[in-house]
Amino acid sequence: MPPPTRPGPHVTVLAGGFGAARLLDGLVRLFEPRTVTAVVNCGDDIVLGGLHISPDLDTITYCLAGELNPETGWGLRDESWHALETLRRLGGPSWFGLGDRDLGTHLYRTQRLAEGTPLSVVTAELTARWGVEVRLLPVTDDRLRTRVTIDDDTAARPGDATTEIGFQEYFVRLRHEVAVRSVRFAGADHARPAPGVLDAIAGAAAVIIAPSNPIVSIGPLLALRDVRHAVMRRREQTVAISPIVAGAALRGPAGRLMSELGHESSVAGVARMYTPLAGTLVIDEADASRATAVEAEGMRCIVTPSIMHTPADAAALARTALAGIGDAAPALR
Amino acid sequence: MPPPTRPGPHVTVLAGGFGAARLLDGLVRLFEPRTVTAVVNCGDDIVLGGLHISPDLDTITYCLAGELNPETGWGLRDESWHALETLRRLGGPSWFGLGDRDLGTHLYRTQRLAEGTPLSVVTAELTARWGVEVRLLPVTDDRLRTRVTIDDDTAARPGDATTEIGFQEYFVRLRHEVAVRSVRFAGADHARPAPGVLDAIAGAAAVIIAPSNPIVSIGPLLALRDVRHAVMRRREQTVAISPIVAGAALRGPAGRLMSELGHESSVAGVARMYTPLAGTLVIDEADASRATAVEAEGMRCIVTPSIMHTPADAAALARTALAGIGDAAPALR
Repeated sequence: MPPPTRPGPHVTVLAGGFGAARLLDGLVRLFEPRTVTAVVNCGDDIVLGGLHISPDLDTITYCLAGELNPETGWGLRDESWHALETLRRLGGPSWFGLGDRDLGTHLYRTQRLAEGTPLSVVTAELTARWGVEVRLLPVTDDRLRTRVTIDDDTAARPGDATTEIGFQEYFVRLRHEVAVRSVRFAGADHARPAPGVLDAIAGAAAVIIAPSNPIVSIGPLLALRDVRHAVMRRREQTVAISPIVAGAALRGPAGRLMSELGHESSVAGVARMYTPLAGTLVIDEADASRATAVEAEGMRCIVTPSIMHTPADAAALARTALAGIGDAAPALR
Repeated sequence: MPPPTRPGPHVTVLAGGFGAARLLDGLVRLFEPRTVTAVVNCGDDIVLGGLHISPDLDTITYCLAGELNPETGWGLRDESWHALETLRRLGGPSWFGLGDRDLGTHLYRTQRLAEGTPLSVVTAELTARWGVEVRLLPVTDDRLRTRVTIDDDTAARPGDATTEIGFQEYFVRLRHEVAVRSVRFAGADHARPAPGVLDAIAGAAAVIIAPSNPIVSIGPLLALRDVRHAVMRRREQTVAISPIVAGAALRGPAGRLMSELGHESSVAGVARMYTPLAGTLVIDEADASRATAVEAEGMRCIVTPSIMHTPADAAALARTALAGIGDAAPALR
């Protein structure tokens, strides 16, 4: 391995929100945090009440700052809800969880973006202020928006008519309890990777695809052609962790979405999606019997406990995943 | 007097923030609230952290809803400050008082404006939700911004170089403690009066110019030519209440601003500004000796206690002011 240009080996994580945040919280127990980069989904960003909200960036930032609300898995701990209560009283859009402390983050980001500062720079400012040393890079500074086409429930029969809505409307307002017909990433054809993203993938000793939703969390990253190609070029150094355990997602709609969009909601289905990108897939012990099916998709398969109850669990998962990519794995500290 | 088209005589108030709010809180003790209209300054609106804030509209709304913070004279009572505290911690612009409950109002307004709803309609929605029956009309739905040119404190000598800033930067961030060279109302040449504004002036039994800052609170209203002309046409039914008592403003920079911009900071100076618009000026007993000077400007002069400690004080002041315009005064209930 050539001598690193920065101290220690570098690990880059392709990241959605909660699952990625937990994994990163483990990785910082194995590596110097500043040698870890997360390329983060911003396709589910939303402008609400004029505020630019970046849910995945915030979830990771708050988690690494030790401030994530442990009960919800999003937002800040010790939160109050006076603004949202007023907004609800006024008849405004109160379906999105805007905590009072959390609003400070949105106000900061929105102000800086309005001044012309790129999201990646604003994110670096925010993480520094929260004392987070892991480098968080939104996948792009350009506009990228995950759009979800659902059954129009005013139609006579399911599928007769559809409506396209923003991701947060699907995910939060409708609690992902509706049938999805398709997902697209508006802006992906023209969005350029944010500064540092391609280098972080090309230059990392290892790339980890976090156990995030393959379609709506990792999908927006891979929808950028240059990002997808950069990961494909690092296939042998890339390991994915399955977000599907025993046929379903631990959290969120990954399983249901995969089924609705024609994928198998299983580790084999995950392998079929990720095999062009990653040489190795980590699956949970609950799916040990499907290891052969994963290998049949052309991936090495690692079976290990994959549910991250604690940061120590996450660190163990990350260690196992990285060991699995063999000689390409960075030295662990 | 022709029969009114709506029940009772109508009173229209030209309004800034706190002083106008207090006066309106008295007027609603004399008249059916829905027969009172306030044409409100929105030149000091500001977009901060992406949120559209209308300080004068909010101060009046909160006051009439019984929710105004009695200690500050702006914002909501029983307020918390978690969002602002986060924003400060993050190094964002924390000089403007954004309370958590108050943020709900700003979020609502900003969302509705982003949907293309005019400010006057949003204001009607907000007042309805707060249970306010007085009709509040922003003077315009178009962009109108009070801009203040101050000495540049990096210059060698005062006045050598100047900087133009927004009104709230002058008023809140700099606590109006800097020398002002000039004030202008950006957009006034093209801003159209909001629906209902001209009719409210033309159709009122009486028009009251509230004891608000003549330059930066009432000034933006009069900067719209059609509004100014509409008031001038009602001069005999218009009564102004001096915001200057004993040579100074009770609150805020009206006195200092008048002096800096070449006016006399006195009831005579107020009379000189308002004489084209109002037939009558109400001044405080402290200024009784200047009544002749007011009359020399061509205005009738009413001397009365003008400091509104309580809503009852405000009601008495309004009653005296309206009685002073003689036969044109609407019947009091």
